[in-house]
Amino acid sequence: MSVLTLQPIGFIRTGKQVKFQALHQPSEQQPEHNLLELLPDQNYEQALRDLAGFSRVWLVWWFHRTTTWRTQVIPPRGPAQSRGVFATRSPHRPNPIGLTPVALIAIEGRTLILGECDLLDGTPIFDLKPYVPAYDSFPDERAGWIEAVDALMASPPLFNVQFSPLATTQAEWLRATWQIDFSPRLQELLVRDPSPHRTRRIRRRQDDLFEIGCGAWRAFFTVNGHQVTVTALDAGFPLRFLTDPKREGLPDGAAQLEFLARWPQP
Amino acid sequence: MSVLTLQPIGFIRTGKQVKFQALHQPSEQQPEHNLLELLPDQNYEQALRDLAGFSRVWLVWWFHRTTTWRTQVIPPRGPAQSRGVFATRSPHRPNPIGLTPVALIAIEGRTLILGECDLLDGTPIFDLKPYVPAYDSFPDERAGWIEAVDALMASPPLFNVQFSPLATTQAEWLRATWQIDFSPRLQELLVRDPSPHRTRRIRRRQDDLFEIGCGAWRAFFTVNGHQVTVTALDAGFPLRFLTDPKREGLPDGAAQLEFLARWPQP
Repeated sequence: MSVLTLQPIGFIRTGKQVKFQALHQPSEQQPEHNLLELLPDQNYEQALRDLAGFSRVWLVWWFHRTTTWRTQVIPPRGPAQSRGVFATRSPHRPNPIGLTPVALIAIEGRTLILGECDLLDGTPIFDLKPYVPAYDSFPDERAGWIEAVDALMASPPLFNVQFSPLATTQAEWLRATWQIDFSPRLQELLVRDPSPHRTRRIRRRQDDLFEIGCGAWRAFFTVNGHQVTVTALDAGFPLRFLTDPKREGLPDGAAQLEFLARWPQP
Repeated sequence: MSVLTLQPIGFIRTGKQVKFQALHQPSEQQPEHNLLELLPDQNYEQALRDLAGFSRVWLVWWFHRTTTWRTQVIPPRGPAQSRGVFATRSPHRPNPIGLTPVALIAIEGRTLILGECDLLDGTPIFDLKPYVPAYDSFPDERAGWIEAVDALMASPPLFNVQFSPLATTQAEWLRATWQIDFSPRLQELLVRDPSPHRTRRIRRRQDDLFEIGCGAWRAFFTVNGHQVTVTALDAGFPLRFLTDPKREGLPDGAAQLEFLARWPQP
């Protein structure tokens, strides 16, 4: 059977190395700008002609960090339930092609200045297409299980989340000293469903103690009926990683070293 | 630089071998249904789970009949003006990937029953994604030159099209005998702009005589100020093709043979 081989036309620069990375920097409230640099010496400048008249473009891109496909996946939002991969936007598809409509802010030479998008830094881009409302916009389509999850997310949360005195002290120190704050993300996840979940990075550690990962950090919590108590925060990397010169430049590495000096890992 | 190799997950059956093919069968007014058959033995049945709850899906597909890319193309509609290929949906892209949202009517095993779409029969499909209005629908985006062309198409036409007595007789015979009618398509093109155009298949044959191709047929016309006169219709294939046993099964071949028996090529 014939196959098609694709070569990137360029790579996007978003500054996001991992999912959720932008979450703990609430001080950077300026609108997000991302850069798409097309490759030189391909005459892409001419191919971009007339595109500036469109206010949004489709990016067709490569889930380049994904190497497997699965028939079913557990989506990050909503109940921990498997869905057919074709009914999701998951990267684990037979052909790892991503599709994202982004705001087109400006074009300078062969660089596009784009609005918000959640592509990881360095994602290879295969194609740009103009977003044409007459062809692409169907506001009234039914969206199956995603509608159901949206309705669930809009309903009042089931769980109440409180921080222990230790967790409160740790969160305040992180905010004041490092401008790092992942409490909103913790809240958002735990008020809905604190049960173990792979993509939400929730694991059971002991009978009544759970752990949740948030970017390079984590937190421990207990569940009592509808009451979730965050007992402690923790660095995501062990001390031996943070002090290993071969692993220099770990995200939030300096903050984690100081955190562990104050609150050594149990 | 790394490259990505794609393998089709299936092939679409639309019955359309060439562009405009469906145009001359106005008697078939039932809504169009197209079939996408996913390949067997790949567990795609499981990957389709939950997709039936969506009323529209994105097809990501291969412009498999296109082998070249061009920085600029002349779109089929509107003035005969070049546009950067990234500002169009033209097949002549660096990576020949097509993107089409189609109505999802039903799923039976690994076959999807889809609504209208203009993919050619046998087009390889690489991916299916659910159409999610919250992610995909932006009705108010600006669409640059396409908006301008739409406005032009909505304005009163500049040319008046009439058929000569011979062309009228030929069109009536085709309609009555073969249920073939490409006059609406001729009208649509010629009232806007009868000037030579590659993708509209209009060519100058002599100083004051033009030819236009419509599927497997063609027509000759003259232009006098704002008056276009269709002087004659003609078979698109020469007699030597139509009688060549090696070329059996040419579109509308039988009709063209009879047409040429009545109106031999000039």
